[in-house]
Amino acid sequence: MVLERAAPVTVAELGEDGLIEIFAADPGAISPTLLVPNGDDAAAFMLDPRYASVITTDTLVEGVHFDLAYTPPHKLGRKLLAVNLSDLAAMGARPKFALLSVTMPPSTLADVARGIASGIREHARLHGVTIIGGNTTRTTGPMVLTAILIGRCEPDQLVRRRGTQLGDALFVTGQVGSANGGLRVAKRGGPLPGGDHPFYPLVSALLDPVPRVSAGRALAKQHLVHAMCDVSDGLGRDLRRLLEPEGLGARIEAHNLPMSDALRQLAAGMGTSPELMALEGGEDYELLFTADPHDEREIVRVLAEVGTPVTRIGTVIAERELEVFMPDGSVISPPSGYDHFPKR
Amino acid sequence: MVLERAAPVTVAELGEDGLIEIFAADPGAISPTLLVPNGDDAAAFMLDPRYASVITTDTLVEGVHFDLAYTPPHKLGRKLLAVNLSDLAAMGARPKFALLSVTMPPSTLADVARGIASGIREHARLHGVTIIGGNTTRTTGPMVLTAILIGRCEPDQLVRRRGTQLGDALFVTGQVGSANGGLRVAKRGGPLPGGDHPFYPLVSALLDPVPRVSAGRALAKQHLVHAMCDVSDGLGRDLRRLLEPEGLGARIEAHNLPMSDALRQLAAGMGTSPELMALEGGEDYELLFTADPHDEREIVRVLAEVGTPVTRIGTVIAERELEVFMPDGSVISPPSGYDHFPKR
Repeated sequence: MVLERAAPVTVAELGEDGLIEIFAADPGAISPTLLVPNGDDAAAFMLDPRYASVITTDTLVEGVHFDLAYTPPHKLGRKLLAVNLSDLAAMGARPKFALLSVTMPPSTLADVARGIASGIREHARLHGVTIIGGNTTRTTGPMVLTAILIGRCEPDQLVRRRGTQLGDALFVTGQVGSANGGLRVAKRGGPLPGGDHPFYPLVSALLDPVPRVSAGRALAKQHLVHAMCDVSDGLGRDLRRLLEPEGLGARIEAHNLPMSDALRQLAAGMGTSPELMALEGGEDYELLFTADPHDEREIVRVLAEVGTPVTRIGTVIAERELEVFMPDGSVISPPSGYDHFPKR
Repeated sequence: MVLERAAPVTVAELGEDGLIEIFAADPGAISPTLLVPNGDDAAAFMLDPRYASVITTDTLVEGVHFDLAYTPPHKLGRKLLAVNLSDLAAMGARPKFALLSVTMPPSTLADVARGIASGIREHARLHGVTIIGGNTTRTTGPMVLTAILIGRCEPDQLVRRRGTQLGDALFVTGQVGSANGGLRVAKRGGPLPGGDHPFYPLVSALLDPVPRVSAGRALAKQHLVHAMCDVSDGLGRDLRRLLEPEGLGARIEAHNLPMSDALRQLAAGMGTSPELMALEGGEDYELLFTADPHDEREIVRVLAEVGTPVTRIGTVIAERELEVFMPDGSVISPPSGYDHFPKR
């Protein structure tokens, strides 16, 4: 007779080695470029000398960036890679290696850890990323997930946040505000809307953002962009990141902001403006960039080739101000977006 | 009349930009090797094609790895870099760049954040490390500090955990067990022993470990080492990391373990054996390595040049077992050291 254990297994029961195994590198990853993978004191790799190395790290904290009550672990793992891939995309870089730093309470269910790892691995495979190292530790508090992504880029193709020029057009990929809408829906509590619900695209934007890796590469390769960043902290705040370093401003036509019907419907029900939700909402993980207005047609063409929609949303002006012309005729200076440590 | 604020400032009052400023890269760090520093979506750098890149990440969690009740913030910052520098040292690599991921409760005092940053910067300067990027976020739980260290090494000088040979001698730098002793002293509560107290070296080993960067480089450069790791999780556990990959074992003469008088005195007072405390204690951040016994004299000479003491502690044997000959004549198989998620 086999007795089955009824209680679900926790990472405390797996032990550290068990948890490391879940998040470890795929075996057999050694190659002429990867000299020492996971499982040593550090990972070692050789990079092609023609490329610049591009590195970023981003962290998701339980209770701040995600809530396991409504976030499937697999999607959480995907999102951890997506937010870091988005940073590489905004530099024009191609992703290559990842390290993970996983901090979990011992009471975390083993299946939750496995789900997160499977999501990480899925996005890694999808984007040609090899996991080469990392670190696991326990915590008495919320889960903290950090990924470090390393990519490469031809040095003359790197796209920075600096470089915006007077008279540039402002562009954004995809749609903005959806993740903000999704957060409002998720915070209502109860089961999340399923695939046939009108608000499903909002929740999906929040839980499973699509990093614009191919779009970032395509724009960089064609030298079509003056300055670029990803929209992670809210369009208002991220716009300022492309303008303030050059002492410039911008005029935005709010009716041009690319927004989903779902967001418009949600905003109508809440008695607020979808434009405001798009301007203040974070976590879009779209690419925001400035370019010569004469290149608009070429930009649209190049991005269409990689399946990425793009919208011209405004113009860079000499005055150091951000003016948004709202559909109701008013002009606002948008809220500066998400501050992880908002001042009181 | 100027009214001064009496209450100490928290990071919530600094805001995210204020906190980023505290942990940001030194200005003017751009160079032919560092193309894009901190403050963009990602950092970008060019590496000399003759070198392998070596990368590691390690995390310190409040309540697990440190207690702010007895840890000065400046030393905590130093330790965050030290534990990562130690990983690079164990590969034989020279440190070069760092990224930081800082997760703090909004109630953290601004002076605590500044203290941690000053300790990080001090160790960075000391070891020629440029801080090139990172990330700050708030948490509802304990502070979580992650550093990512990037170094470089000639590919033929990389030292792995694999490579131990039958008949090798086992060596360890410095002294073992002191940090374990320091933890016991700190956990007693009350003010920590000062510079003239006999237990001060133990507390100092715990709070302010010295990474063996020059020693690791010197050993790697002279090709004197077969396999190496740092002693972070306890000598017993870390010994197994050099032996098990090759299916080998070792005999350790416990009376040869390099231990401080302070540890012997503490152990005597606790009615336990200093050898046991050295074998099970973590966080030594010494280098543990295997080498040809004929190279002992050369190893001692090379390490003396960088001011690092070294002790031969045992011999690698064919049997897959770890036997420690204790001073009382007993033979033990040492405890396997610190498990971040100990099985119940």
